[in-house]
Amino acid sequence: MQFTDRIWPKVKPLWESYLAHPFVKGMGDGSLPIEKFKHWLTQDYVYLVEYARLFAIGTEKATSLEMMQAYAKGLDGVLFVEMNLHREYCASFGLSEADLLATQPSAVNLAYTSYMLSQAQAGGVENVSAALLACSWSYSYIGRALAAIPGALEGDKYGSWIQMYAGDDFTQLNDDAMALMNRIAEGKADYELDQLEDIVLKTGYFEYLFWDMCWNQSTWPVGIPGLN
Amino acid sequence: MQFTDRIWPKVKPLWESYLAHPFVKGMGDGSLPIEKFKHWLTQDYVYLVEYARLFAIGTEKATSLEMMQAYAKGLDGVLFVEMNLHREYCASFGLSEADLLATQPSAVNLAYTSYMLSQAQAGGVENVSAALLACSWSYSYIGRALAAIPGALEGDKYGSWIQMYAGDDFTQLNDDAMALMNRIAEGKADYELDQLEDIVLKTGYFEYLFWDMCWNQSTWPVGIPGLN
Amino acid sequence: MQFTDRIWPKVKPLWESYLAHPFVKGMGDGSLPIEKFKHWLTQDYVYLVEYARLFAIGTEKATSLEMMQAYAKGLDGVLFVEMNLHREYCASFGLSEADLLATQPSAVNLAYTSYMLSQAQAGGVENVSAALLACSWSYSYIGRALAAIPGALEGDKYGSWIQMYAGDDFTQLNDDAMALMNRIAEGKADYELDQLEDIVLKTGYFEYLFWDMCWNQSTWPVGIPGLN
Amino acid sequence: MQFTDRIWPKVKPLWESYLAHPFVKGMGDGSLPIEKFKHWLTQDYVYLVEYARLFAIGTEKATSLEMMQAYAKGLDGVLFVEMNLHREYCASFGLSEADLLATQPSAVNLAYTSYMLSQAQAGGVENVSAALLACSWSYSYIGRALAAIPGALEGDKYGSWIQMYAGDDFTQLNDDAMALMNRIAEGKADYELDQLEDIVLKTGYFEYLFWDMCWNQSTWPVGIPGLN
Repeated sequence: MQFTDRIWPKVKPLWESYLAHPFVKGMGDGSLPIEKFKHWLTQDYVYLVEYARLFAIGTEKATSLEMMQAYAKGLDGVLFVEMNLHREYCASFGLSEADLLATQPSAVNLAYTSYMLSQAQAGGVENVSAALLACSWSYSYIGRALAAIPGALEGDKYGSWIQMYAGDDFTQLNDDAMALMNRIAEGKADYELDQLEDIVLKTGYFEYLFWDMCWNQSTWPVGIPGLN
Repeated sequence: MQFTDRIWPKVKPLWESYLAHPFVKGMGDGSLPIEKFKHWLTQDYVYLVEYARLFAIGTEKATSLEMMQAYAKGLDGVLFVEMNLHREYCASFGLSEADLLATQPSAVNLAYTSYMLSQAQAGGVENVSAALLACSWSYSYIGRALAAIPGALEGDKYGSWIQMYAGDDFTQLNDDAMALMNRIAEGKADYELDQLEDIVLKTGYFEYLFWDMCWNQSTWPVGIPGLN
Repeated sequence: MQFTDRIWPKVKPLWESYLAHPFVKGMGDGSLPIEKFKHWLTQDYVYLVEYARLFAIGTEKATSLEMMQAYAKGLDGVLFVEMNLHREYCASFGLSEADLLATQPSAVNLAYTSYMLSQAQAGGVENVSAALLACSWSYSYIGRALAAIPGALEGDKYGSWIQMYAGDDFTQLNDDAMALMNRIAEGKADYELDQLEDIVLKTGYFEYLFWDMCWNQSTWPVGIPGLN
Repeated sequence: MQFTDRIWPKVKPLWESYLAHPFVKGMGDGSLPIEKFKHWLTQDYVYLVEYARLFAIGTEKATSLEMMQAYAKGLDGVLFVEMNLHREYCASFGLSEADLLATQPSAVNLAYTSYMLSQAQAGGVENVSAALLACSWSYSYIGRALAAIPGALEGDKYGSWIQMYAGDDFTQLNDDAMALMNRIAEGKADYELDQLEDIVLKTGYFEYLFWDMCWNQSTWPVGIPGLN
């Protein structure tokens, strides 16, 4: 059985919990307040910087030249394509590059990226692949689910977001990530697959917290001096 | 100026926010519900396992044999002294070793240790030293502050905890950690010191969240399938 | 003083020892036997794969987005430009891609790349920058020195090699590497600069051994079972 | 089949090539010139410092608390037992601690330890275990082989060396290392076991070069400015 089939029964309820979250639902029906979306825009920009580091670690730890090239292309895609698109997209919502550069990661954001980085560094390339998976897989799942809602793709505010994550380019990107994960996991022992599943599930939990953080427009909990 | 003096104005309000937190106050006046304290006991055990890895990274990245030996002794202290004491102490609160081994890290716990590990791996030994600092410094600060409360050291429930962290052994351990940090930071450029301060402050924020997590006996936020 | 000026008196005799080496002299006057050059071609291909990993580590450890982008571009340059050129160039010497992929690193090659990787992983981005420096700097030095020999640039066998390393593109690439190293080293304490110098010098020693290995067409010393 | 059985046909000729090497033979029959042995003593001291870092990386990457403890004990053993014994032993050959601290790693020594470190960092704990194996396994093999030579254990010069590596303590240490390697390798796919074998074999090649380096009392090849 392929790794993504093996883990599917465990991630399906997670991915569906995102669809049930008011932030994601609000993108689907257009009711999401724009300020909450802007919180996602700025926090996601900070997230992408760290997410790019994951591809760099993948390149470092890849066990073949072909795998190095796959991760290096992914790195290039995040740093020079996705982040540029993100900047343009932010501009259309009135967020300048200066706004993005001034953004500090929220507690949840820092927790999520730190978890991915520490797991990627603690093992071989299989850990990197597992750490990267939940983000692309669930965004692809969300994008296609929202696209199936009548009118969502034409939504004034969030139609373009849904078009991007439901579109062919992102679908291909996620298909490639899933295929690479399956190839890397092939033949591994059950205890190894369990460890990789644990990474995917934990990043999946952080994905939920990320949506929640954006919905609440939270940065760090109140009560910590120097932060609020 | 020594690094710990340079950062003192920034960490002092953080350390004091812990003293003002109901969990820490409750240890001082004995009012802390025992169930909340048990949450700390189990989560701290899981934390110590990851904290020990930090000393291992310090040993790996140390720039002299003497520094390697200092970190290796710290590792030994956490893995074979502190964790044994912790197990005995837990037993006195009715928590078995099986309870400890069955404990899963809460979201805040995982966030905190992941942050320390990812920072330690991203730089040289100075990052390791900075990541380790907030924990020992603030526990020493708390221990000595609580010990100054009349009757606290003799408290039925939490007197022994306060005795440990206000005691000579832990004071020495923290003095050594601060001295090592100051030695490692010596002569570094301001931008480097700023980066190290950032690590100490962020771990300090996570310390606050850790107390809060124990107070609330929280593991992961509700709403995530498979966790609650 | 800039880092590259500080270390110049120490690297100059090293760079000049390469110019005095029969392999490099033989490229300058065209007398280098083609079989020795083919040994360089295959070993350098294997070297580039590992050298690319250094840029990935630089991207991972970079302390700013701008620095991440610089390393990611360098990674792209090695993996998708330099290695492609290398394959084409090898083809012109009758070496197929299969020959390149079948090449095992020699003892010196493995030693050199392992040293760079272990130093890069043991510290922050400054270690990565230092580990990358000797290769580009000395090749640029060699290229320009050989180009100054009358007739060398027009040499049947090695003229195109000299044109490449003396050319504007490679000069720019090395100027960028030196500038980045100087920027990263700025303001660092003497003991830190000494450590970085040590990395540059040791990689410089391995560069000498690499030329020597190619001159001798050696892989692993005789006497080791299963290798010769 | 256990990993150490799987690889045995490949390492046996390597281990036997050490027995056939004049350095090792000279320890067995007492003919080894003392100056060559002193070269081993100083270079091995430098080697042990880096070898200790491997155990630290093992502690960092261990996938269970029990495994962390095993590596932490190994680290303690190298840094505080083996290195102390080594210092005392060196003193009996007229080498002071200052001599040891002033020793610079030879090219082969640096190559060998850099290879182990870079492989340990590039993967999970299985890489660490594989990188550590050749040293203890082959020294145990050599110790017991030399001990079987009549009179060798009573040799004036090298009898105590043979006693140590043929003795119960070192035999146990190596048995533990082999058992841990086998446990870690259990259930892994063939391509993973092949990668681990590659690490053991390459460290085995470097072991041969290390004996050769000591026999030749070499540091760095001649011709490199600033070294000879």
